[in-house]
Amino acid sequence: MHLRMDQWKHAFKLDPDRDLSDDALEKICLSGTDAVMVGGSTGVTFDNTVDLLARIRRYEVPCVLEVSNREAIVPGFDLFMIPIVLNAKNTDWIVGQQHGAIKEYGAILDWKQMMTEGYIIMNGNSAVANVTEADVKLSLKDVEAYARLAEHLFRCPVVYLEYSGIFGDMEWVRRIRGLLSESRLFYGGGIDGPDKAREAAQAAHTIVVGNAVYNDLEQALATVKAVRE
Amino acid sequence: MHLRMDQWKHAFKLDPDRDLSDDALEKICLSGTDAVMVGGSTGVTFDNTVDLLARIRRYEVPCVLEVSNREAIVPGFDLFMIPIVLNAKNTDWIVGQQHGAIKEYGAILDWKQMMTEGYIIMNGNSAVANVTEADVKLSLKDVEAYARLAEHLFRCPVVYLEYSGIFGDMEWVRRIRGLLSESRLFYGGGIDGPDKAREAAQAAHTIVVGNAVYNDLEQALATVKAVRE
Repeated sequence: MHLRMDQWKHAFKLDPDRDLSDDALEKICLSGTDAVMVGGSTGVTFDNTVDLLARIRRYEVPCVLEVSNREAIVPGFDLFMIPIVLNAKNTDWIVGQQHGAIKEYGAILDWKQMMTEGYIIMNGNSAVANVTEADVKLSLKDVEAYARLAEHLFRCPVVYLEYSGIFGDMEWVRRIRGLLSESRLFYGGGIDGPDKAREAAQAAHTIVVGNAVYNDLEQALATVKAVRE
Repeated sequence: MHLRMDQWKHAFKLDPDRDLSDDALEKICLSGTDAVMVGGSTGVTFDNTVDLLARIRRYEVPCVLEVSNREAIVPGFDLFMIPIVLNAKNTDWIVGQQHGAIKEYGAILDWKQMMTEGYIIMNGNSAVANVTEADVKLSLKDVEAYARLAEHLFRCPVVYLEYSGIFGDMEWVRRIRGLLSESRLFYGGGIDGPDKAREAAQAAHTIVVGNAVYNDLEQALATVKAVRE
């Protein structure tokens, strides 16, 4: 698999629309994390994406773009992750944006660098739920069915449980991981320090730490070591 | 690939909701076609599907269910084709129906028997366009982008250009086939006899003959030989 993504335990997600000092960025990139993902739900532009890429590129850490906006597809990342929001009620986030991007760049894309993520949005109060008009009234059986759909029908290398802003139900996360044989389970949401990181890393294949970077950098950095233990 | 689907040149599509005499069905099944697909847009039920399956099973021809309704998932077909209607505006036809079916049967499904079809609905006046609320105002570039999306992002073994009821633009069909390297291009719509069959078979990988079976059986049967020439 790309970049040995099958061995990633930990990733940081950086938002091009939020400020991060050079010092903080250096600590992130040298933290020992497996990858830095660049992406956000709102305010992501070509300019702020290319700026952030250039700053991350000073370091050796793998750098991935999570494409949320086709205006902001910047060449030069190691990998492009294409979200497919399975519980979106707006088709734009399942095929529309993707279709628009392929219409524009399809002839020149290197498909080997592209990887789909079957997203399941769990927190109705998050920006991403709002933007995608996600149906978040989901039972465990609903979530299981989305995970199977992502793995078997859409053949997504990644299934992404996105609790964005809240810490999820780890029992559910563990159940979903147990269903998957080909796809890798990414977990994101509410990892504000090493304790939550440890717990989430025991339930998912890969944990993603986002907001903590901006709220409490030292706690965020401590999540890397927690996952390695 | 399943059932050597990669060698199919011709298939008949039979609608469980339409009458077909035993004599006509025998001629279809012994025609030399590569497969009989069972499916329809409206009126498909468990009962009429299981009836049709039982009647086709007297013959050796491969028999495939195109799942359009989760109430009508009947075990015992050789293969289950799962349409994903890429230009649907109603998410039910992209992930919703599929999600519902997996929620019900996911734990017992044999995924090796399942195969997705990336559908592109081309005729706005068809029942399938109506049911799926398809956006049919498509340029060639739009269709190309959907085909690439189906092949590379959703990794559909089949891309299905569905002109349902009218004969399509064979230059477009040829262009789409030329884009595909992994997926197979199915063409359906307006094949009312051997001339159209020959033309469509030169443009697509596999042609599907549906309505003609009910409108003019002899003409429909003649499409098999036309494709073999």
